[in-house]
Amino acid sequence: MPLFKVSIGKFKQLSSVQSIVLFYVTAIMVSTIILSMPFFLREGVSVSLIDTMFTAISAISVTGLTVVPTDLTFNVPGYFALAFILQFGGIGIMTLGTTIYILLGKKIGIRGRQLISVDQNRSTLQGLVRLMLKILSTIIVIEFIGTVLLSLRYLYYFDTWQEAWIQGFFAAVSATTNAGFDITGNSLLPFSGDYFVQLVNMTLLVLGAIGFPVLIEVQQWFFDKKDHRNRFRFSTFTKLTTTTFFILVVVGAVLIYLIERRHFFSDQSGLSAFFYSLFQSITTRNGGLQTMEMTSFQAPTLMVLSFLMFIGASPSSVGGGVRTTTFAIMLLAIFHYAKGHSAIKVFKREIARQDVLRSFIVITTAFMLCLTAIFIMSITEPFTNMEIAFEVFSAFGTTGLSLGITESLSVIGKLVIMVMMFVGRIGIFSFLFLIRGKTTKDLYKYPEAKMIIG
Amino acid sequence: MPLFKVSIGKFKQLSSVQSIVLFYVTAIMVSTIILSMPFFLREGVSVSLIDTMFTAISAISVTGLTVVPTDLTFNVPGYFALAFILQFGGIGIMTLGTTIYILLGKKIGIRGRQLISVDQNRSTLQGLVRLMLKILSTIIVIEFIGTVLLSLRYLYYFDTWQEAWIQGFFAAVSATTNAGFDITGNSLLPFSGDYFVQLVNMTLLVLGAIGFPVLIEVQQWFFDKKDHRNRFRFSTFTKLTTTTFFILVVVGAVLIYLIERRHFFSDQSGLSAFFYSLFQSITTRNGGLQTMEMTSFQAPTLMVLSFLMFIGASPSSVGGGVRTTTFAIMLLAIFHYAKGHSAIKVFKREIARQDVLRSFIVITTAFMLCLTAIFIMSITEPFTNMEIAFEVFSAFGTTGLSLGITESLSVIGKLVIMVMMFVGRIGIFSFLFLIRGKTTKDLYKYPEAKMIIG
Ligand SMILES: [K+]
Ligand SMILES: [K+]
Repeated sequence: MPLFKVSIGKFKQLSSVQSIVLFYVTAIMVSTIILSMPFFLREGVSVSLIDTMFTAISAISVTGLTVVPTDLTFNVPGYFALAFILQFGGIGIMTLGTTIYILLGKKIGIRGRQLISVDQNRSTLQGLVRLMLKILSTIIVIEFIGTVLLSLRYLYYFDTWQEAWIQGFFAAVSATTNAGFDITGNSLLPFSGDYFVQLVNMTLLVLGAIGFPVLIEVQQWFFDKKDHRNRFRFSTFTKLTTTTFFILVVVGAVLIYLIERRHFFSDQSGLSAFFYSLFQSITTRNGGLQTMEMTSFQAPTLMVLSFLMFIGASPSSVGGGVRTTTFAIMLLAIFHYAKGHSAIKVFKREIARQDVLRSFIVITTAFMLCLTAIFIMSITEPFTNMEIAFEVFSAFGTTGLSLGITESLSVIGKLVIMVMMFVGRIGIFSFLFLIRGKTTKDLYKYPEAKMIIG
Repeated sequence: MPLFKVSIGKFKQLSSVQSIVLFYVTAIMVSTIILSMPFFLREGVSVSLIDTMFTAISAISVTGLTVVPTDLTFNVPGYFALAFILQFGGIGIMTLGTTIYILLGKKIGIRGRQLISVDQNRSTLQGLVRLMLKILSTIIVIEFIGTVLLSLRYLYYFDTWQEAWIQGFFAAVSATTNAGFDITGNSLLPFSGDYFVQLVNMTLLVLGAIGFPVLIEVQQWFFDKKDHRNRFRFSTFTKLTTTTFFILVVVGAVLIYLIERRHFFSDQSGLSAFFYSLFQSITTRNGGLQTMEMTSFQAPTLMVLSFLMFIGASPSSVGGGVRTTTFAIMLLAIFHYAKGHSAIKVFKREIARQDVLRSFIVITTAFMLCLTAIFIMSITEPFTNMEIAFEVFSAFGTTGLSLGITESLSVIGKLVIMVMMFVGRIGIFSFLFLIRGKTTKDLYKYPEAKMIIG
């Protein structure tokens, strides 16, 4: 069987990134099959193949954009199947894959470790398996607490405890994985006056989007012996990504409040406006849940939200976009360059030149990709540029907010959004490596050319 | 007079970039005074200070956005005053300043040379004075030929030869300096069927926007002795900027044609559609003249034009934007990075790492600046995001195309557009150096931090 041998050989030659993509594609295909099974659909409901695929990609990439109403399309077993897919997509196929390997008692080879490393963008291979287990257990603990808190509260809203529990469980999984799917039929709008539900959801959203490395470090710090704690040092990465994360949340909330003060918030109490602003700002960090209609917002607010969605979540989290560190390094680079500094310093550490270049490449490529998507859809779709841009940035950031056009998209529009969700999830870095084809080594050098720039 | 001494001292300490900016600010102030003189205005016309300042900045930055109708506001002496200001702004205050110095028989010190060097972004000081003279004579020759060709043709359109000559002269200056101002009252729309007028204008626009270094090199090549010509080598800069320039023109024209084929061009002949597409593509390279209303275009076309205006003209030309080389180097960097190459090669030369970083910084800063402008104006102006974005990119690219909102802008809107025209003209690089304040030397080094990006 020489053909088979060739295939195996080719597979081995694939770079880690390409393997990751292959795994994601497989996961999407399997999810499509699962979600198209009549067993998981409500009676009399039928969904077209493209809509099922759209739902599968949206679930695996934990985006939350939907072309069919989740609550009316799937039945209770379907809700659980969907929750399982969200879990799978959110934590990362590799993380789960590793854990399953461990549970089955198999050893993970160096190649397996490399795959996980790229998927979670970890630059060290040390203690990776233990790390995976930590991630999984952390997430499950968070989701368990979330489920208990929400289910108890939902007893006020739903008739039976079963219903309250199912809603609470799905909501906790959807919030922690930042999936943005809902089975209330209207996101968190039914709870727009319930600050307890919102606080729990915001906490879960932040824990999911802040990045696993940060969670692990905080855990270590927390469980460290008292005499060690003072000497514990958070990594520069954790400091930078967490600072950026919370600055974005605060800036977002303040801008939303200031713009909407005399519009949507004009007849709201201060507390109400505060919760609306804060929740909608946090949700762009990648959750996609919402306590109000996006169409109620003014154009400037929608611009702010689009921008925040484009930046997205922290690296190695459940979220997409260009990631917080990328954006922070870009800003730091511009600032230091304008100041005439030769190196970029932050928290008493320097950022490697290679990382600076990489940040710029990720951001510009991402933006041109989004522009191309908006351009194509402005030809094929009958919606305004604002509605289309919002949808595209939401898909790339795997956020899942929408101005309500998702269900009415043309087939081309749906395909474009599917691609954007996929690229947003695997990240621009993987995307670039995916399309690069055969790598050639630099064996020769040319003299440098003088250039005039800007 | 110790105060005076301090001022002189401070002036000497100013970096070259800051001096350039100071000169531009002075030029704008002088232009404002000139344009507000009743001698240059038509009888009974009065213009507010902000509108005069707007016109002055628009003229000095050769943008061409107008808040008052040029033809109805200024009289014939006013037209000549405006043409003089366009000339001054277009060729660069330093170029003219140098020439005036030479004509007055004064020697230019090393500081004067540095100023010119930064203004035209030239990285060598050698033969700078001779170069300035070459630039000026080249431009004047081009404008003279343009005036003759257009004036003769305009005899068909205007009643008197004086009128034809004034219109021809103003049109030639406006096209060569890529100013985009017109005294026909309706740009080149009266000549939308006259392909001779359009060909002359397109040629002048290209000659002005393609960059002085390119013109000089082509001149050298052309006047080189026959046996030398084969050995003449164009610089990598000239090759890259010219290639990018014409690729953008072709891509722009093709996209305009494809999008508008079934819309604005549906009842046009092939030749007519060809000229409309080509002219409107070239005009975004920075001229701002137009043979049709921008409001006739579809949204996707307006997106393409906005993008092209943002890129702008070649460096060391009369135009603004991020410049063609900057955009080209960014694309090359992304391509080479995706391919896994360690160096960026083009035309058998390598691009310096510093230039790559600088290109990314220029593009991202420029884009964030434009986004901020659009965001502010989306709050203060009653227009759509598309109309505002088009206006902002047009101002930053110093292009001067508009969807017709310029005259109706609020005071804040006008101020934002004025800032964008100014920054577009001095360039992002100068802008960053302008705002950087006191430079501090890096005397210490921190260890590098590991980062996760994208
Ligand atoms: K989401
Ligand atoms: K112009």
